[in-house]
Amino acid sequence: MKIILLSGGSGKRLWPVSNNARSKQFVRVLPAPDGGVESMVQRVVRQIGESRLRCGVTVATGAAQRGVIEAQLGSGVDIVTEPERRDTFPAIALSTSYLSMEKGCGDEEVVVVMPCDPFTDSGYFETIARMTEAVETGGADLVLMGICPTYASSKFGYVVPMPGEAGKPVMRVAGFTEKPDEARAARLIEEGALWNGGVFAFRLGYMRAITARYVQASTFADMVAAYGRLPKISFDYEVAEKAQSIAVLPFNGMWRDLGTWNALADELPGCCMGNAVVDNPECGSQVVNQLGLPLLCIGTSNLIVAASADGILVADKGSCEHLKDYVDRLSQEPQYEEFGWGSRKVVDHSGEAVTSRLEVNAGASTGIMCDLVHAATLTVIAGTGVATVDGKLIELRTGVVMTVPCGMQCEIESAGDASLEVIEVKY
Amino acid sequence: MKIILLSGGSGKRLWPVSNNARSKQFVRVLPAPDGGVESMVQRVVRQIGESRLRCGVTVATGAAQRGVIEAQLGSGVDIVTEPERRDTFPAIALSTSYLSMEKGCGDEEVVVVMPCDPFTDSGYFETIARMTEAVETGGADLVLMGICPTYASSKFGYVVPMPGEAGKPVMRVAGFTEKPDEARAARLIEEGALWNGGVFAFRLGYMRAITARYVQASTFADMVAAYGRLPKISFDYEVAEKAQSIAVLPFNGMWRDLGTWNALADELPGCCMGNAVVDNPECGSQVVNQLGLPLLCIGTSNLIVAASADGILVADKGSCEHLKDYVDRLSQEPQYEEFGWGSRKVVDHSGEAVTSRLEVNAGASTGIMCDLVHAATLTVIAGTGVATVDGKLIELRTGVVMTVPCGMQCEIESAGDASLEVIEVKY
Repeated sequence: MKIILLSGGSGKRLWPVSNNARSKQFVRVLPAPDGGVESMVQRVVRQIGESRLRCGVTVATGAAQRGVIEAQLGSGVDIVTEPERRDTFPAIALSTSYLSMEKGCGDEEVVVVMPCDPFTDSGYFETIARMTEAVETGGADLVLMGICPTYASSKFGYVVPMPGEAGKPVMRVAGFTEKPDEARAARLIEEGALWNGGVFAFRLGYMRAITARYVQASTFADMVAAYGRLPKISFDYEVAEKAQSIAVLPFNGMWRDLGTWNALADELPGCCMGNAVVDNPECGSQVVNQLGLPLLCIGTSNLIVAASADGILVADKGSCEHLKDYVDRLSQEPQYEEFGWGSRKVVDHSGEAVTSRLEVNAGASTGIMCDLVHAATLTVIAGTGVATVDGKLIELRTGVVMTVPCGMQCEIESAGDASLEVIEVKY
Repeated sequence: MKIILLSGGSGKRLWPVSNNARSKQFVRVLPAPDGGVESMVQRVVRQIGESRLRCGVTVATGAAQRGVIEAQLGSGVDIVTEPERRDTFPAIALSTSYLSMEKGCGDEEVVVVMPCDPFTDSGYFETIARMTEAVETGGADLVLMGICPTYASSKFGYVVPMPGEAGKPVMRVAGFTEKPDEARAARLIEEGALWNGGVFAFRLGYMRAITARYVQASTFADMVAAYGRLPKISFDYEVAEKAQSIAVLPFNGMWRDLGTWNALADELPGCCMGNAVVDNPECGSQVVNQLGLPLLCIGTSNLIVAASADGILVADKGSCEHLKDYVDRLSQEPQYEEFGWGSRKVVDHSGEAVTSRLEVNAGASTGIMCDLVHAATLTVIAGTGVATVDGKLIELRTGVVMTVPCGMQCEIESAGDASLEVIEVKY
């Protein structure tokens, strides 16, 4: 079997530690079993590995997230980059085509599609294993995960079982109700309806046939080229709501969306992350400081304080839902980005000039960089390596300076066991 | 007449916008008449200029503050730098010696000594003018300003008039009571005692005679060399409490110490300074953001949020008095410093390496800089000028890079009408 993780989203609700290049699923603030921290997507991939699922993982995402996925998940996953952001149906069609055409998976292979950022326990992945078995044993063409509702929410989609199916371990599905009002939600729950958790299992051939209605491609490259012809529609509308043979398996464990600071705060490893002091931690204030500067929180209650190269947030936990409205008005480019090779953090802006610290992981290479607008001076402050500037090799060690004219190609490679650090001044 | 401003103090109570190189009197956050902002010491010097006092101003300070005083007060004041920090008596002795020996002032010249940071109105300077007249007309050897008490404070020193003097425009003084308990303070106030405002007027010869008891110097250089022989004692104890002929003039106007964030907040020009948004300004939160990053304050009440290169403070206004205890534990060097020639702001630390932005004011020169520990790369990002590195002249414009080995002398001079900006990477 294969798992496809859908990775999208913007970084506004967890600003400033998330940004357009680092959506909420990449924020590394959750306690990891090794005593360090991990991001939501790292947690999910770790949980998949710890489950009885024996499967490859493919991440479906946009080009902007490729670097951070490489940085956080390394070579353990395949990445399928959508040529443009459309919706979940085209994204899943592209990833299943990748499995068929690039990975050589057959039509009988079971595929599970799921979000990349649910905060759950091991039971969630046990449910996925049983969904896979339900597809394999012919229970249905499409098998969904239904989250057992804890209240009559008007914010979720509901999966409604057929009459008489409620309570069975695998229920045939009568239909869907998207975001009902609370009264209707309460009646649906009485009838045994479940929240739609966005987890779908099916055989690869099932999806291949649906995709072929829009695009007949014989290679994955053809599929990528034809991506714009796939309709902009969700998988729920295009596939689930039209499916003839569909079942749902209930999941009754922990299932949380850590999509706001208020929700995330409960899962942080303590009151202070980074260089920070809270004088009265018993009053509920929590700090995530990703800047090098010291941060002091004195006499406050129930605040989230978060600082990164992108900005500083001071918010009452109960008011975090308003954050997005204010972040929408900020037009700044991401000031911190992770890549497969390392990271770039802006440390100063002044007029047109931008100063950044680049960290190139041991043994990694930035690939060819070329700025068509700015010239740059790069000073190595730690590590060793080699740079190629305008085709010439330069040996790198602390104190070596490279000047890179506007439009010239430059590639930096780190040698040795430690990362290479460079201060880049663009002007 | 001459005014001596005493400028000392540490930067802990208004951290992080003040630091060891920028005590509270140098924090530029008070609204200025030109619509901009000014610091406490700039405000006092401006108020002296607007008063009917026609006088030169000398600032007595330590070496660490010389740069910021030059930056904020320019050539409008003389600066006397104490060779070491001792106490107010030696500081005043040194400054009065400077007036006698360097400025050619005679023994009859009236000198007024005052703190550099009271937040007052024009009546304060009118009282100083009348104190000067009281010395000139022979009212007393030493004339003090007495602040009319508004409550029975145990934190101030009290000036006690002689019986029958209370209420007169110039009162002869019976003695002093330092920080009485509240009950005693209340009785003193009933008897007409006033708070000692730390403002003293006397003839230069009066102080010259007292100084000569400890040091006989014929030049100012001799006086500086002998500075360590002056006793470590306050002017109040060494001079005021021993004076035979002493009078006090009452001042009944606005007189505030903006020495904590809570006190300063009331005088800030609004809820936001710098790149900041407070979503509910009616709830009393105020932000001073001296970083370039955006700062959002959502759903908070009655907070002071202050951010600078030295750190970030989030404090309930009522808890600001505890700030010093926490700042005492921070051991960081100042990350932002003002000098006569411009400023230096640290923008990144990484291991041993420090990256800073230098701003050299139009027409100014840094003077010779020499770092015995680090080598540096300097990249010009704006402006024009000339540098002298190891005796060689280098013409500066955007993009010019200087490499300065450890221990080599370097001087940067800005030409043209705009300031010169340089990113300095020390490693």
